[in-house]
Amino acid sequence: MSTPVRPGPVRSVTAPSNPAIKDIRALAQRKHRAETGLFVAEGLKLVADGLAKDWACETLVMAEGMLEHPFAARTAATARARGATILTASAPVMEAITRRENPQSVVGVFRQRLLKLDAVDPRTATVWVALEGVRDPGNLGTIIRTADGAGASGVILIGDTTDPFALEAVRATMGSIFHVPVVKVRSEDFLAWRPGFPGPVVGTHLKGSVDYRTPDYREPSILLMGTEQSGLTDAMAAACDILVRIPMAGGADSLNLAVSTGIALYEMRRGRLGA
Amino acid sequence: MSTPVRPGPVRSVTAPSNPAIKDIRALAQRKHRAETGLFVAEGLKLVADGLAKDWACETLVMAEGMLEHPFAARTAATARARGATILTASAPVMEAITRRENPQSVVGVFRQRLLKLDAVDPRTATVWVALEGVRDPGNLGTIIRTADGAGASGVILIGDTTDPFALEAVRATMGSIFHVPVVKVRSEDFLAWRPGFPGPVVGTHLKGSVDYRTPDYREPSILLMGTEQSGLTDAMAAACDILVRIPMAGGADSLNLAVSTGIALYEMRRGRLGA
Repeated sequence: MSTPVRPGPVRSVTAPSNPAIKDIRALAQRKHRAETGLFVAEGLKLVADGLAKDWACETLVMAEGMLEHPFAARTAATARARGATILTASAPVMEAITRRENPQSVVGVFRQRLLKLDAVDPRTATVWVALEGVRDPGNLGTIIRTADGAGASGVILIGDTTDPFALEAVRATMGSIFHVPVVKVRSEDFLAWRPGFPGPVVGTHLKGSVDYRTPDYREPSILLMGTEQSGLTDAMAAACDILVRIPMAGGADSLNLAVSTGIALYEMRRGRLGA
Repeated sequence: MSTPVRPGPVRSVTAPSNPAIKDIRALAQRKHRAETGLFVAEGLKLVADGLAKDWACETLVMAEGMLEHPFAARTAATARARGATILTASAPVMEAITRRENPQSVVGVFRQRLLKLDAVDPRTATVWVALEGVRDPGNLGTIIRTADGAGASGVILIGDTTDPFALEAVRATMGSIFHVPVVKVRSEDFLAWRPGFPGPVVGTHLKGSVDYRTPDYREPSILLMGTEQSGLTDAMAAACDILVRIPMAGGADSLNLAVSTGIALYEMRRGRLGA
């Protein structure tokens, strides 16, 4: 049996200058997220999702009065029973945390989960979405949400990428940050690991020789996407078994990264997704 | 023959408080865009795209030294020959205009183009993408870019939507704002016009009864998408011939609007897009 957890304290905070609030605000900076291993999720639905998926919640901040709502009160009780500190906060404090004029009424501080490549199990995998050097947190969050919707196995971040636990990224996942495993790996380690993965690696490339609608996609597989600016590096393109191309009909040079990932991913899962 | 255009003036601006610069900065606000009918496009490629497509450029702002670059100089000469004012600006002025620390070196002020429903010609149409109440400028810009890539005929904005000429929207189009016709229409006018359109109207709906992979899509057609928050209103859903559903496999409730538009649009154009 595990040690019983002591219920966390419940405190009221009215000043944005409160040290606990300052610590949460500091999580807007990547440096502080890296140092603490924590991140912020906004909104009652997201926080409840995180708790339902057993993510460790350190602090739960609720706008004054929220504890009168049954679902919010149950969520707070769950978090507290697992040791989280519960803070009830004034409107100015909520605005300070979320840096928004109409802030969410619930904010959770959770412990990050970043996995290593050994989390990629080919025996149970469908498609893993691998992103080389993704830059935009909104794109990354949207891709995590899309991976969730398409039943992908998870997302692999390759090389120097934006942080999946940035506020904008977490917002864009709409809760899927708590559903989708995220792996982080250096480029050279991914390239060294790739030959041991038994399925195909499908890259999308503007110069790809194969129309994305034509391959007979097998699973498990990896969908490998390049950066917003310049696509896949030569080294990553060389690691692919197929380079597919999404046709461009008009004056656009390319599609947004999250959109092209969605089109390619739903195509790869086309024959396997339930109606 | 049309009246010859007098080449625009060339001036140097070093103070962000310069009235011409203040006017450009004011275009960050929807109110000022509506009053003037103008908008801002950033970046040499975008500005050159706009000029190539004969959009009216009122003012071209270039960072000091940019006129030494041949392509920038040619672009400025083209704009000036059509009557645009050319401003060469100091770095603080460029930062003030773009509200960014690393600003683009070229900013163009263009006249907006918003069309009416009579621009929708069923004889030449492929798919028109109609958006009911789209809220997020990044989503709207990304959808305009996607419509361009998929060879859609244009985008119809229905009801109260975000402004396609907002800075974030224009940025997200990556130049497609100059390629893709945009129609704006009130909800009741769209509903009154719809019976006269000879092709099918395909709505996406989480409760749609038809899997999006199964219809035999004809053209011309309309792809009708609802808001980020709540999808199509009942009135718009009732105006559709088919309501299709994109399957959700994991814990996500829905996809990002631009991603679901991309998946549905490429599916509708599947048999007609060149490889």
